[in-house]
Amino acid sequence: MAGSSFGTLFRISTWGESHGKGVGVVVDGCPAGLTLCEEDIQIFLDRRKPGQSRFTTQRSEDDAVEILSGVFEGKTTGTPISMIVYNKTQRSKDYSDIAGYYRPGHADYTFDEKYGFRDYRGGGRSSGRETIGRVAAGAIAVKLLKEFGINVTAYTESIGNIAIDRERFDISKRDENPVAMPDAKAAEEAACLLEEKMSEKDSVGGIVECVVKGMPTGVGEPVFDKLDARLSQAILSIGAVKGFEIGAGFAVTKMCGSENNDSFVVNENGDITKKTNNAGGVLGGISDGSDIVLRAAFKPTPSIFREQETVNKEHENIKIAIKGRHDPIIVPRAVVVVEAMTALTIADLLMMSMTSTVDKMKKVLQ
Amino acid sequence: MAGSSFGTLFRISTWGESHGKGVGVVVDGCPAGLTLCEEDIQIFLDRRKPGQSRFTTQRSEDDAVEILSGVFEGKTTGTPISMIVYNKTQRSKDYSDIAGYYRPGHADYTFDEKYGFRDYRGGGRSSGRETIGRVAAGAIAVKLLKEFGINVTAYTESIGNIAIDRERFDISKRDENPVAMPDAKAAEEAACLLEEKMSEKDSVGGIVECVVKGMPTGVGEPVFDKLDARLSQAILSIGAVKGFEIGAGFAVTKMCGSENNDSFVVNENGDITKKTNNAGGVLGGISDGSDIVLRAAFKPTPSIFREQETVNKEHENIKIAIKGRHDPIIVPRAVVVVEAMTALTIADLLMMSMTSTVDKMKKVLQ
Amino acid sequence: MAGSSFGTLFRISTWGESHGKGVGVVVDGCPAGLTLCEEDIQIFLDRRKPGQSRFTTQRSEDDAVEILSGVFEGKTTGTPISMIVYNKTQRSKDYSDIAGYYRPGHADYTFDEKYGFRDYRGGGRSSGRETIGRVAAGAIAVKLLKEFGINVTAYTESIGNIAIDRERFDISKRDENPVAMPDAKAAEEAACLLEEKMSEKDSVGGIVECVVKGMPTGVGEPVFDKLDARLSQAILSIGAVKGFEIGAGFAVTKMCGSENNDSFVVNENGDITKKTNNAGGVLGGISDGSDIVLRAAFKPTPSIFREQETVNKEHENIKIAIKGRHDPIIVPRAVVVVEAMTALTIADLLMMSMTSTVDKMKKVLQ
Amino acid sequence: MAGSSFGTLFRISTWGESHGKGVGVVVDGCPAGLTLCEEDIQIFLDRRKPGQSRFTTQRSEDDAVEILSGVFEGKTTGTPISMIVYNKTQRSKDYSDIAGYYRPGHADYTFDEKYGFRDYRGGGRSSGRETIGRVAAGAIAVKLLKEFGINVTAYTESIGNIAIDRERFDISKRDENPVAMPDAKAAEEAACLLEEKMSEKDSVGGIVECVVKGMPTGVGEPVFDKLDARLSQAILSIGAVKGFEIGAGFAVTKMCGSENNDSFVVNENGDITKKTNNAGGVLGGISDGSDIVLRAAFKPTPSIFREQETVNKEHENIKIAIKGRHDPIIVPRAVVVVEAMTALTIADLLMMSMTSTVDKMKKVLQ
Repeated sequence: MAGSSFGTLFRISTWGESHGKGVGVVVDGCPAGLTLCEEDIQIFLDRRKPGQSRFTTQRSEDDAVEILSGVFEGKTTGTPISMIVYNKTQRSKDYSDIAGYYRPGHADYTFDEKYGFRDYRGGGRSSGRETIGRVAAGAIAVKLLKEFGINVTAYTESIGNIAIDRERFDISKRDENPVAMPDAKAAEEAACLLEEKMSEKDSVGGIVECVVKGMPTGVGEPVFDKLDARLSQAILSIGAVKGFEIGAGFAVTKMCGSENNDSFVVNENGDITKKTNNAGGVLGGISDGSDIVLRAAFKPTPSIFREQETVNKEHENIKIAIKGRHDPIIVPRAVVVVEAMTALTIADLLMMSMTSTVDKMKKVLQ
Repeated sequence: MAGSSFGTLFRISTWGESHGKGVGVVVDGCPAGLTLCEEDIQIFLDRRKPGQSRFTTQRSEDDAVEILSGVFEGKTTGTPISMIVYNKTQRSKDYSDIAGYYRPGHADYTFDEKYGFRDYRGGGRSSGRETIGRVAAGAIAVKLLKEFGINVTAYTESIGNIAIDRERFDISKRDENPVAMPDAKAAEEAACLLEEKMSEKDSVGGIVECVVKGMPTGVGEPVFDKLDARLSQAILSIGAVKGFEIGAGFAVTKMCGSENNDSFVVNENGDITKKTNNAGGVLGGISDGSDIVLRAAFKPTPSIFREQETVNKEHENIKIAIKGRHDPIIVPRAVVVVEAMTALTIADLLMMSMTSTVDKMKKVLQ
Repeated sequence: MAGSSFGTLFRISTWGESHGKGVGVVVDGCPAGLTLCEEDIQIFLDRRKPGQSRFTTQRSEDDAVEILSGVFEGKTTGTPISMIVYNKTQRSKDYSDIAGYYRPGHADYTFDEKYGFRDYRGGGRSSGRETIGRVAAGAIAVKLLKEFGINVTAYTESIGNIAIDRERFDISKRDENPVAMPDAKAAEEAACLLEEKMSEKDSVGGIVECVVKGMPTGVGEPVFDKLDARLSQAILSIGAVKGFEIGAGFAVTKMCGSENNDSFVVNENGDITKKTNNAGGVLGGISDGSDIVLRAAFKPTPSIFREQETVNKEHENIKIAIKGRHDPIIVPRAVVVVEAMTALTIADLLMMSMTSTVDKMKKVLQ
Repeated sequence: MAGSSFGTLFRISTWGESHGKGVGVVVDGCPAGLTLCEEDIQIFLDRRKPGQSRFTTQRSEDDAVEILSGVFEGKTTGTPISMIVYNKTQRSKDYSDIAGYYRPGHADYTFDEKYGFRDYRGGGRSSGRETIGRVAAGAIAVKLLKEFGINVTAYTESIGNIAIDRERFDISKRDENPVAMPDAKAAEEAACLLEEKMSEKDSVGGIVECVVKGMPTGVGEPVFDKLDARLSQAILSIGAVKGFEIGAGFAVTKMCGSENNDSFVVNENGDITKKTNNAGGVLGGISDGSDIVLRAAFKPTPSIFREQETVNKEHENIKIAIKGRHDPIIVPRAVVVVEAMTALTIADLLMMSMTSTVDKMKKVLQ
């Protein structure tokens, strides 16, 4: 409960610092019998690794994952799955400058305040590298959900003022451009914006959207473990996220009930569906069978190359200019992290929902 | 973990349905020695009870709280504090209509899907009355936080398109108008909007903002139990909330790093503070000593008096017109719920932060 | 997590003090669709209430339970089941003596040390009345387990040196004697022993044994939530318990492997069973399909009428003689508490086991 | 919550199988600022590694631990401490026999029943090698407790019928004999017994006792997280443990209240202590300042070289003779495991106790 674990039944615990020996995760509670190999994990990790485009840091890290336990003869055994990615950039670079002051927008100051000191190398525990553990675990959750026909897909919805056009939405485009947008034209415009901001030694924010298709009804636990509440915690736990929306999100605040209410309707198969999906697939915290739709607001990369004002540990006002290699935007590499956190949350609550009625339990026990 | 509990060290468990015998909460983990009486709780409950203005249902419920345990000689004992509010409207009203169909925007359908059937009287467990337990527990959290100089205040930020003007912000006005706005002029405009929507048999959404002053640094547990992540779960767990923001929230997605980064600065007392607070008081999931600022997006009341399309349990398309007494807006009565959930989250994480270093523990143990 | 909750999926939270307004419990996570009424609970509570024999305190408390939530039209709804028993003996008896000193064998001193002060009336939170909440919740767990063919039965195995004779074992006798022994002759001898000790103003300890029949295999989570580990926590959490055994228990320490190992054998139905059951139905922390057999060691009632040495709050050595009405033995009334805690543990872990394989989940989801 | 984690604030998650790539543990919640290096861990692991005497398997495993995260510049940072021990015996030995049948006294059958299949190599997850993670984590807990003057020491109390003589008790002898007994004479007798049983191709059980000195009062959370209840779960979670006692344990069942009650007394320093310690340092689930004394009953090693009856996966009765290298007794190598689990439990509950009163919190916050 000290913060590095997430989930109740499908539970992950991440560990590791940016410049320590490695980063990793232990997944406890994954059901037995799921086909799994390192390649299943690696394809997810490759989506977040640096050096993929001119908008991501050129550090060459292959981030190769190793499964250390919990898989036998190609299948999960039901016991903890431990995964590790060794750090390559563990070299004794000179961090003495960073050690002595507090970078704006970073967690340097708060870690020092909370723990008395910190591993200052490359952000330590608060580095984006921590998300490797999430993505590795999320890859398993994604694979588990597929067994039940559930698919999780995230993409960049906007970068700065450049948003995708829903008319041009084509998910197959997402992996063909460096900004992970499912809209080729918006992707081009966003690339221009990024070039501009890079030349200004500045950075940009953006929005990641995630859609879950094939959701069964009944997932999510009232009252505090509502599906949307747990998704919200999952998403806000990603560094740099400052906002969360489910369905119509903040737009509902300007709608009337008659606009916002989604009418139920019986479809051609006699099934109950909804005419619209302002709810984003959740009613009363429980999945209603429609697509889950959520959005995460990412702040601009705090590491910028312009001169900035800040303070040092001696409580003196100073000016700094951050060096090194930093992405001008967090969003494209964060898309797979949003997917991972969404899948982890849904896998956990799906498992929780197995015991909501005596009749469901009888299906297993008899 | 079945969903009706929140918190790790300061832990609450709510129970009760809208038209059952009562609603209540058990608070486990409140430190001993806090002065507490029923009046401390009642003043919070009175802020959410119905019948306070023309914009809230005219049901007369006094919602009187009774403390059943955990307080002795006027102080908390460290053992569970059980609180109950008996329901008055338990009468055998005819709910046969609601029982048979699914109201748009409500949890009727999802509860049936999850549990096989539901207590359909007045929304059952998914009724807004469930928040009584949260507010009662939150009142204790608020009182506990005051012992450490921490103050939690929420208010209506906007209703539909009517937002408060930051220039006119005056928190003392909040309790003088029926919409809980800290801006008398905006409150008047919002009241007009509500009158209009009521005449149209419609409802409106809005935003509640919450500010926490006096925060110590170091509160919040990386990685998954970040202060903002837990706040987000807390807020999204409130029925009708569809979005959450911390600090600048979604606005950061359109900002550059140079705009969004809050510069650290040493103030006249030699203390480290920030020039701006786009972060909303949280860096890397840990409080930085600035005010915590968050916002919750509330959807319009789903119960509207217009005719609506929906389906019944027999999977037939039908039309319905909801009757009874329903507020045209959720926001004003939800303000105290947001305050309660915020206080509960911070109290819990404040307690968690007591053991972040060996030195802190030595202060207690020696 | 502040100690008054137990279980992960089938989770209970008890509250209340001996002489406060009442005691109660909230059960969260009970699957929907279980037929339940107050009488189902009351028959369990009646087994632990005082005044049933000359060996239990003559206080007349009817301990009538009221279900406040979570049951609708005679069935559990899946939402929290809140139950309350109001205290009758809330009168302002003079407790000023107890308030000032620390009774040997009681928690007076440790509560004062932990919380700074305590509700000293009748033991407060550490009173045996706290078990009312456990028994009420346990009654529901027992009923749930019966749906799956699982039966939990506890009884007195020994009182002082008087143990039941396995040759004479007859569970139908258990409720026919005041000491809850399934052996009429041993019960008579135990009654004599108790009369003798009462005349000596002293008290006696004993052992409660509990057997669970009809266990499915596969219940219990390695490594830390082993079935026997969780049962052990459950049993030791009962006040006055000082030891726990599963299967052959401490006797295994004097056995050879060849004696202790239970041979597996295929029975006439082609099913795998064990020739013996030294394991007590648990191998590697997981149920093996044999009966679960456990034992709890209860200390003698600490409240005795003889003069005892102790100290007061002023740190002075004093002599005291406890007054009032106290059972000369805890065991007979604790039998139903052991049953309750066993059932609660098994219900919780049974629910946990629903998701141990992908195939099990497919039975529910398809 | 899937079973491989233990603790609330000081929380560990173990992973790994006997013949997988390695075994390890993640410790989350260790306070920052504790001096720690691999040698601190290794000395504990060396106490449980095989090949130390003629009574332990002659496998040569050096079980060298590597700290992967959470320690910076020689001190814990407050972030997760990940530790790994790579397995040496990962070779492709022929396990086809074990794969097909169920060894008596082992978890082969129950793992197959729970998970559908199992990693059968050397016991897989249910192997004693799993305890490496516990011992590594326990070493940290032991070091943390020492900061507060708390010392945890375990030793062999008995092997078969050979028990230590309290008159000859000398803890300094514990590490001088192969059976970890603090009594040289008993150790010799035990060695003879073991030689005899080895020649008979059989195994023996025994008792481990653990004493905690320097305990502060107030540790342990009523009601379900009582200190003794959590210790009991911790101890029973060790494979092969079949019983647990605190203080006088099962002996209390044959004592009178006047014998069992520990009188409080004011000592020469004016402090409150107890004349005797039948309670084992716990009253009402809370530490009373006396030594914690507990005992764990270990069964004889189930792997014996005699022919045994059992069944195979095809549900046929068969006879088997286990081969390989197996200790004739579990106890000596389990001593450090008991120490580890005891330390982990106490560290966790010690941290929980930091927030039991408002006054304690003020010591940290002001």
